[in-house]
Amino acid sequence: MAPAEILNGKVVSAQIKERLKNQVIQMKEEVPGFIPGLAILQVGNRDDSNLYINVKLKAAEEIGIKAMHIKLPRTATESEVLKCITSLNEDLTVHGFIVQLPLDSENPINTETLVNAIAPEKDVDGLNSISAGKLARGDLSNCFIPCTPKGCLELIKETDDTKPSGKKIVGDVAYMEAKERASFITPVPGGVGPMTVAMLMQSTVESAKRFLENFKPGEWIIEYNKLNLKTPVPSDIDISRSYKPKPIGNLAREIGLHTEEVELYGETKAKVRLSALERLKHQPDGKYVVVTGITPTPLGEGKSTTTIGLVQALGAHLHQNVFACVRQPSQGPTFGIKGGAAGGGYSQVIPMEEFNLHLTGDIHAITAANNLVAAAIDARMFHEETQTDKALFNRLVPSVNGVRKFSDIQIRRLWRLGIEKTDPATLTDEEINRFARLDIDPETITWQRVLDTNDRFLRKITIGQAPTEKGHSRTAQFDISVASEIMAVLALTSSLEDMRERLGKMVVASSKKGEPISTEDLGVSGALTVLMKDAIKPNLMQTLEGTPVFVHAGPFANIAHGNSSIIADRIALKLVGPKGFVVTEAGFGADIGMEKFFNIKCRYSGLRPHVVVLVATVRALKMHGGGPTVTAGLPLPKAYIEEDLELVGKGFSNLKKQIENARMFGVPVVVAVNAFKTDTEAELDLVSHLAKEHGAFDAVKCTHWAEGGKGALALAEAVQRAAAAPSNFQLLYDLKLPVEDKIRIIAQKIYGADDIELLPEAQHKAEVYTKQGFGNLPICMAKTHLSLSHNPELKGVPTGFVLPIRDIRASVGAGFLYPLVGTMSTMPGLPTRPCFYDIDLDPETEQVNGLF
Amino acid sequence: MAPAEILNGKVVSAQIKERLKNQVIQMKEEVPGFIPGLAILQVGNRDDSNLYINVKLKAAEEIGIKAMHIKLPRTATESEVLKCITSLNEDLTVHGFIVQLPLDSENPINTETLVNAIAPEKDVDGLNSISAGKLARGDLSNCFIPCTPKGCLELIKETDDTKPSGKKIVGDVAYMEAKERASFITPVPGGVGPMTVAMLMQSTVESAKRFLENFKPGEWIIEYNKLNLKTPVPSDIDISRSYKPKPIGNLAREIGLHTEEVELYGETKAKVRLSALERLKHQPDGKYVVVTGITPTPLGEGKSTTTIGLVQALGAHLHQNVFACVRQPSQGPTFGIKGGAAGGGYSQVIPMEEFNLHLTGDIHAITAANNLVAAAIDARMFHEETQTDKALFNRLVPSVNGVRKFSDIQIRRLWRLGIEKTDPATLTDEEINRFARLDIDPETITWQRVLDTNDRFLRKITIGQAPTEKGHSRTAQFDISVASEIMAVLALTSSLEDMRERLGKMVVASSKKGEPISTEDLGVSGALTVLMKDAIKPNLMQTLEGTPVFVHAGPFANIAHGNSSIIADRIALKLVGPKGFVVTEAGFGADIGMEKFFNIKCRYSGLRPHVVVLVATVRALKMHGGGPTVTAGLPLPKAYIEEDLELVGKGFSNLKKQIENARMFGVPVVVAVNAFKTDTEAELDLVSHLAKEHGAFDAVKCTHWAEGGKGALALAEAVQRAAAAPSNFQLLYDLKLPVEDKIRIIAQKIYGADDIELLPEAQHKAEVYTKQGFGNLPICMAKTHLSLSHNPELKGVPTGFVLPIRDIRASVGAGFLYPLVGTMSTMPGLPTRPCFYDIDLDPETEQVNGLF
Repeated sequence: MAPAEILNGKVVSAQIKERLKNQVIQMKEEVPGFIPGLAILQVGNRDDSNLYINVKLKAAEEIGIKAMHIKLPRTATESEVLKCITSLNEDLTVHGFIVQLPLDSENPINTETLVNAIAPEKDVDGLNSISAGKLARGDLSNCFIPCTPKGCLELIKETDDTKPSGKKIVGDVAYMEAKERASFITPVPGGVGPMTVAMLMQSTVESAKRFLENFKPGEWIIEYNKLNLKTPVPSDIDISRSYKPKPIGNLAREIGLHTEEVELYGETKAKVRLSALERLKHQPDGKYVVVTGITPTPLGEGKSTTTIGLVQALGAHLHQNVFACVRQPSQGPTFGIKGGAAGGGYSQVIPMEEFNLHLTGDIHAITAANNLVAAAIDARMFHEETQTDKALFNRLVPSVNGVRKFSDIQIRRLWRLGIEKTDPATLTDEEINRFARLDIDPETITWQRVLDTNDRFLRKITIGQAPTEKGHSRTAQFDISVASEIMAVLALTSSLEDMRERLGKMVVASSKKGEPISTEDLGVSGALTVLMKDAIKPNLMQTLEGTPVFVHAGPFANIAHGNSSIIADRIALKLVGPKGFVVTEAGFGADIGMEKFFNIKCRYSGLRPHVVVLVATVRALKMHGGGPTVTAGLPLPKAYIEEDLELVGKGFSNLKKQIENARMFGVPVVVAVNAFKTDTEAELDLVSHLAKEHGAFDAVKCTHWAEGGKGALALAEAVQRAAAAPSNFQLLYDLKLPVEDKIRIIAQKIYGADDIELLPEAQHKAEVYTKQGFGNLPICMAKTHLSLSHNPELKGVPTGFVLPIRDIRASVGAGFLYPLVGTMSTMPGLPTRPCFYDIDLDPETEQVNGLF
Repeated sequence: MAPAEILNGKVVSAQIKERLKNQVIQMKEEVPGFIPGLAILQVGNRDDSNLYINVKLKAAEEIGIKAMHIKLPRTATESEVLKCITSLNEDLTVHGFIVQLPLDSENPINTETLVNAIAPEKDVDGLNSISAGKLARGDLSNCFIPCTPKGCLELIKETDDTKPSGKKIVGDVAYMEAKERASFITPVPGGVGPMTVAMLMQSTVESAKRFLENFKPGEWIIEYNKLNLKTPVPSDIDISRSYKPKPIGNLAREIGLHTEEVELYGETKAKVRLSALERLKHQPDGKYVVVTGITPTPLGEGKSTTTIGLVQALGAHLHQNVFACVRQPSQGPTFGIKGGAAGGGYSQVIPMEEFNLHLTGDIHAITAANNLVAAAIDARMFHEETQTDKALFNRLVPSVNGVRKFSDIQIRRLWRLGIEKTDPATLTDEEINRFARLDIDPETITWQRVLDTNDRFLRKITIGQAPTEKGHSRTAQFDISVASEIMAVLALTSSLEDMRERLGKMVVASSKKGEPISTEDLGVSGALTVLMKDAIKPNLMQTLEGTPVFVHAGPFANIAHGNSSIIADRIALKLVGPKGFVVTEAGFGADIGMEKFFNIKCRYSGLRPHVVVLVATVRALKMHGGGPTVTAGLPLPKAYIEEDLELVGKGFSNLKKQIENARMFGVPVVVAVNAFKTDTEAELDLVSHLAKEHGAFDAVKCTHWAEGGKGALALAEAVQRAAAAPSNFQLLYDLKLPVEDKIRIIAQKIYGADDIELLPEAQHKAEVYTKQGFGNLPICMAKTHLSLSHNPELKGVPTGFVLPIRDIRASVGAGFLYPLVGTMSTMPGLPTRPCFYDIDLDPETEQVNGLF
């Protein structure tokens, strides 16, 4: 044994604290707003422990650590202490904490249980089993050593030339050694005590550093899934269920989401809280890529599949942080004739049956909210028609326990009416009349009921025919749920507060005097927000190859803007970080979905897109070149199965126009030629060649349907290059222009129309909306997606046409006017043999069969 | 140092193995079907390790352990090994496993990461940090020691008199000691090797034992929540949100659910998989308690609140295992005038806004499924009316790539029609006609569309008025979603397979020839099951005091049986174990909800109830005694606020009759007198006194609304005693009786009617259903709940009346006939000032305001 030596802990500890202070300053510089946090949980109130605690608190303050002292009484039960430990474990501002238990607790307290409840990464006292085990086994990475022995070791290290920590030492030896050495050091004032405190500080700073490293936004450690490709490619549902998705909580951690930002919905779906956006607000955005397509055949050209293939390539193959943001499909058509929307083949969101069915209930919430508004409109009209002003007012503002009070939402209506009163007793008869009567003109009601079912018999109905409604019947209709304005609000909103506001601004009709009547006037807007409080959180799922996907909002592309949510894109852009990619899909062809993506979605979000991916197929180009009609459910005509370079060459005109359309917004265009097995190499090459010749940044062949991410590697590389290229994003029109001018700009520049013609109803509506103050909204064209013109028969690039505008409607809450070009179906129907004939559940395996 | 000694491991290990063998036999006797499981995960394929593995496998077999040998190639990546470890961690049949990594792995493998990924409770090799740390710190409970040193220690113990393990030894010393001792033992053949193997087996058996102990069904270690009662009692929403619920995953663990049986839906709700029922099938059921009430006032008398108060008392105060099983409320009325259904005051299910709003989407799933059937009916009629037999058949059985095939569901229809063919080409014209045409008689359609919205204007509508439907319009209606037969199916089903069958048996109409047309005939039943696959799993929530609650199914008490699900009750009865309690609530008064609970729900489930809790209030008794009318929303008349023993005494007749009704089923009755602050002690005492005098097992005053579980302690104790009392449960009628007789028995025995009168429509339906083969179903009376008779004005115990049966309908899938006594409203409306005026979301705190 060595002779006892006197080591000066006071000096050494002061040096250490000085060093830590500088480290903390540096951390704060690197991550603005960050402060290392220490908590001391004290149970009972012994004088001697108070003294030590004060020393620790003071040291923390000097160093720049935020220290928190939590006191529980001596009478606290084990479970109360445990609760406190759990909440410290979850507190992101606390990077280390120590627990001081009383020697004389009144309750039976199992010290082991409590100590082991401390999260190992916050166990700065190194007391729990994991810390001890790591130490014992020599696994010193991410491990904390108890502060007193550590202090002794450090003291020896600082004062002794042999420096035991210079080499990797076997843990149990180190531990024994530390204990032993500590035991024979003469405790002098200013000896071990200050070192213990310094070590606690050092461990806390160390823990804070690890926290920052682990939660460095934009640094993902993600596990990909290897595909085992089969030929011929099995059905979508067979592929989907042959891969077991990662537990969604794991994926959330992999991409840097904190536990409390994630709400699991079973094992394969999760909602992400908007608090993630707040946490990451200083993080720069990633690259923003939009996938669109040429004017499609009725079969679709594979935009969703390309979106998923592209992210699989960027993620699982090129190891970039990447997110796909896609729309939630309507459930109704799943049982009609439509295919799934989760992509297809080896480029899918999984599990596809969860994706295509209820998901987490967002569309159901929209249905409920939408129909509450509808019920409120008719019930209100009924009550107004059957009651006097006074009766109406007395019911609207009832006396409860002798007190009559306006609710908040009623006071806001009074203010909008210019009645600045809060006492119901003071309203004049005229004010009572104006307040109590919305006086809705039934002819002006634009709000329809919705269902997420393909129910053609609800396209036009008569309601209110029961005797209880006393003859107040009227004609009405049901739309498919995704056509609800509330879906468009969900897609375009930026926060809970903004959603509350938009849900209150929705205009459902005009009063007989021509004033707009809003959901706020109906008193229902708060309830709508309550119904939609979970729907606003994007849904996290994954691709077949294990990359993250947000599925959020799916506004009907026929009458709304057909793009997934701004909120999902925003969170994804933060999560991928500045070097990452977010790939989002726009519904319909580039003339519709992309135009709205830019002029509506990007206008509201303020986000700048970096790349347009334009999906084209040989099949669709042949159609544009003059090939015969393509019909869903029927075999493809011969022209589409055999090589025909001339047809492809002629049809290229449509792709060329759509490339021009994208470039009009100043964003580089990569053409993805989605190859089908009947396409020949010469045909595919021709498309790529022509596209590059006519302004595409690049054009590449893709085979992701059959090969997953591997088949979209060339596309992914092209997108990477394009994202690095200079771009000069600009919107197409100024909101301040008259409604008609804005429509004309879109029609002429994007569709190639000679001019537009506003039919009388449209002319009238343009005037009404302008008068009501909605003239400055962006334009959301409701036009067929099957032609650049209004006539679905006209393929290629139609010219010499005047675009007729039949009517104009307003989605004031969502924030756009939608001119109707022709008649838009807003309720699909069921065919003679709906696809539900093939769908069933196996009660043994719980597997879904027959879904695509 | 002691001199080297030779210890005979072969002999000792043989003794140990013999002992283990006997232990395993005993375990298997105690828990039939249980087998301890060991897995050996081998990466790479070294000859020497193969040898050892075979020895281990052989030893396991001898002892009765099921051993599994999993081989991964030398080329396996770290993440592949990790995946395998994770799946072993989750595998409930594996109680211990060891991992053998190659020395020459081709991939970078972090041994620490892999070893630490082993769940500590399965780390039978004692290799990971937690095991090492526990050992190092002397925390030897639930800790595994590495097998070789452990073997040496054991060898020393067995052969040495000093027996080092006889006392609690400090871990690191034991570890060092074991290592040291092991190092100087001369390895002889049959020395340490067999001991290592024996120790592995011992640890595995030990782990299996711990597994059985931890997951001993019916042994709960549950944390309760202390209430901090305030006076006056705050609003329901204020109380609800002032208590932070336990993370629902914790509660699930506390009550013995396994992780893979639980699907989290955020932090406060979870779905429980039906696999729990399978796992617990040998577990005896707990005591089954049903809560019902006297004939109520329109304000309700607090059955839900009593249910929750009672479980809080039994659980948090008397420390019994207890589950409440309650109905999921309809969301629509939440925005009308109705109060919440989560209980109230200090006896609530929390968070109440989650309970009252979407929950996990079960009702939304029902809406979607119900309306798919409705859309399918009208679309099918339309297609049949507009196509020839041949066109119809060609579309129903299309040629796909040249092949025509019936789908499974179509083949089943053919069989039902007696056409035993599978080749579409072989059907005769007559067979094609019968197969392709359902030939629905529109007049017989009983299937309605539903919405979970109070939309009175949909009570009677005309559908199909759009030009696309070519004039095929008809009159139809929407009901509230909970009135859907699918809700009743959900409540009465016993398994996924049973649900599939019931969803196919639902009769929607008759053909023009009078044959019943089912959802299976429509081809939609498989899709319905797919839509309902998650809804079948009960939803776990908690009470304010932290006891578990299942919220599952809420069939409309007006036209269905008004009871929560059989599946939830069943799982709960298994989880609480034989000494525990399940308290389930029946809708409406005892004459309706309880009668249906017994005659329909218990008949289908086969479960035997032990106690009836009958809730009574002084207020309702006064009403029955002749007090003035009570109306929701208006102040209570004076009679209800001041003491009036005479009124109470007169009104007792209703309680007396309901006690008799319950006793008719042979089950003891405990009367819960739910006290309001205006009740006097004399009034409350009078009720208890009279109830006991007239057949109640006991009658006690309850104050759980104001005091939580504490206020229902006397009730809980009475229920405990009653559950121990003998009971002799019997059903009221035999299913084989004619429909009319079954109705008469209920009317006479339960309602006190002189007789019944079947009006012509009812007479006709009784004949039709009997002819169609549905005459043997139980009866689900659709009668007002506001009187024992059919006239809501008649209070007390009406006599001398004949019950008129207006019509009879059938819910064939759910499994009952429902006679209509008077007109039942199946779609509520919105009042002039719906309660949504007060509801809003605070965008900052995300708190719901104004909900009750």
